[in-house]
Amino acid sequence: MKIVALAGGVGGAKLVDGLAQCLPPGDLTIIVNTADDFEHWGLNISPDLDTVCYTLAGLSNFETGWGRMNESWEVFENIIQLGGAGWFHIGDRDLATHLERTRRLKSGLQLSEITRDFCRTWGIQQTVLPMTDQYVATIVDTLELGEIPFQEYFVHQGCQPTVKGFRFEGTQTARPVPGALKAIIEADAVVFCPSNPWVSLDPILNIQGIRSALASKKVVAVSPIIGGQTIKGPAAKMFTELGIEPSSYAVAAHYSEILSGFVLDIQDGQWEEKIGSLGLKTMSINTIMKSRNDRQQLAQDVLHFIRERLIA
Amino acid sequence: MKIVALAGGVGGAKLVDGLAQCLPPGDLTIIVNTADDFEHWGLNISPDLDTVCYTLAGLSNFETGWGRMNESWEVFENIIQLGGAGWFHIGDRDLATHLERTRRLKSGLQLSEITRDFCRTWGIQQTVLPMTDQYVATIVDTLELGEIPFQEYFVHQGCQPTVKGFRFEGTQTARPVPGALKAIIEADAVVFCPSNPWVSLDPILNIQGIRSALASKKVVAVSPIIGGQTIKGPAAKMFTELGIEPSSYAVAAHYSEILSGFVLDIQDGQWEEKIGSLGLKTMSINTIMKSRNDRQQLAQDVLHFIRERLIA
Repeated sequence: MKIVALAGGVGGAKLVDGLAQCLPPGDLTIIVNTADDFEHWGLNISPDLDTVCYTLAGLSNFETGWGRMNESWEVFENIIQLGGAGWFHIGDRDLATHLERTRRLKSGLQLSEITRDFCRTWGIQQTVLPMTDQYVATIVDTLELGEIPFQEYFVHQGCQPTVKGFRFEGTQTARPVPGALKAIIEADAVVFCPSNPWVSLDPILNIQGIRSALASKKVVAVSPIIGGQTIKGPAAKMFTELGIEPSSYAVAAHYSEILSGFVLDIQDGQWEEKIGSLGLKTMSINTIMKSRNDRQQLAQDVLHFIRERLIA
Repeated sequence: MKIVALAGGVGGAKLVDGLAQCLPPGDLTIIVNTADDFEHWGLNISPDLDTVCYTLAGLSNFETGWGRMNESWEVFENIIQLGGAGWFHIGDRDLATHLERTRRLKSGLQLSEITRDFCRTWGIQQTVLPMTDQYVATIVDTLELGEIPFQEYFVHQGCQPTVKGFRFEGTQTARPVPGALKAIIEADAVVFCPSNPWVSLDPILNIQGIRSALASKKVVAVSPIIGGQTIKGPAAKMFTELGIEPSSYAVAAHYSEILSGFVLDIQDGQWEEKIGSLGLKTMSINTIMKSRNDRQQLAQDVLHFIRERLIA
């Protein structure tokens, strides 16, 4: 069964890891948000792309979910000493990725080509695609600071400012990377990982051609909101600040016109009927991924749901 | 006694360290070659400047003479794994310097301003000046490969190609950094450290105004060639390939019109008379600096020579 997964940050990478444990590598394509990409220390950083790749390669820090395992911080500590910016943590191994990516981008290579080559080096057999090779940037409109770039909001301000809305710079002209639309068209189903709907998945959905390619597909989303909260990240806070009660229902409603099915946590059983009323098939199961085994179990359940309830 | 030292690579940094041990910090200004500076991994690297600064700050690797002590190589190893260039070794701590320097240069700061600030951070009380804030590059003309940039010759090709000559790009327009000419004018004497005459000191001497500022000064050079050889680096090989027998005499003759005095190694006593015939006062002593104490001893001897034989 050919699957395309759309993924953003840590929650997304966890389900991607689960799917990779369940599917033959050739059957899994991951399209990753790049609207969080930014320049820091003069380097091009693609946090979501790296989180997915490090996770698939078995190089990720399992504790934090981001960055690399057995990481050292020599460069970071010395940059801080010299007066460089310390609000975004970059470990030494991680830094090598940013340095080599930046060098290649400057030499004229595309992010998708660089990613393909890095994946080969890291032994990743699945297809990992940045959503676009063009510049796209999430701008967060906040009550206190006005419009600020995503990483400024997310890391530097620690998600403290009150969100009024989002804007995606560049989506008018950005196109999917080669192979992305083809992968969606050939997929048996598309999985929206439990990533932030506002800032991880909406940017991908706003890239030209993605929404229309999804229109004819079986699409299932896994809720990143469990019991009104998120495991990690500001999705629930964002829903609240935008005047929407954060819930798995709110997530389902956010995407409802694209979805065929919705997977919510067992804790959220009370929302299942209301989600069903949006015309979606539903499954409520444990969606909390604490261990690698949890990731595999959730992926297996999602694939079973697709096979038995959406495709059959 | 106010001293200006002109320095290039490792030998230069050693004598600078010795001078720093002998003089009040306010009495020592070091003007450093930047014609070896180059871009690598997308970063602006100033090898001679860093060698001098790390040495003065007590941060340098005493074994190699370049790079930092207690260095780690996480970034380097991971960049190599990703296919990045591995011919120029950059340790993690050293890398922080290049990253932060590059970021500041891009933001519009001058190399001299950045160097001043780094020196403050590292607790260096002497004045360290890059020779210029403008682009200057040593191009080595070789028999086998034609014209190649200095680091390509020095590190990548391991000084193997046969040297036919040198060219300094940018010296027509490059100006000394603020304070450099003033330091020379106010100095009691100028010391040419035992650095490579062709590629470490000639670039400094080719910057507009340096030679004329030196014309009225007591200038003493310490020979980098001992017994026809160098402790480190290709100076002797370069003399040979340019058709000149490598010797302390050859070094003295190279600079003779600028110098008042010349310090040669005790092993080279046979050249002393011939060097004297160039009109230079001479001193033959041990010039090999194996320990930090050797550096201090040589500096003390040079300062004594200046005081007793050049100024008196």
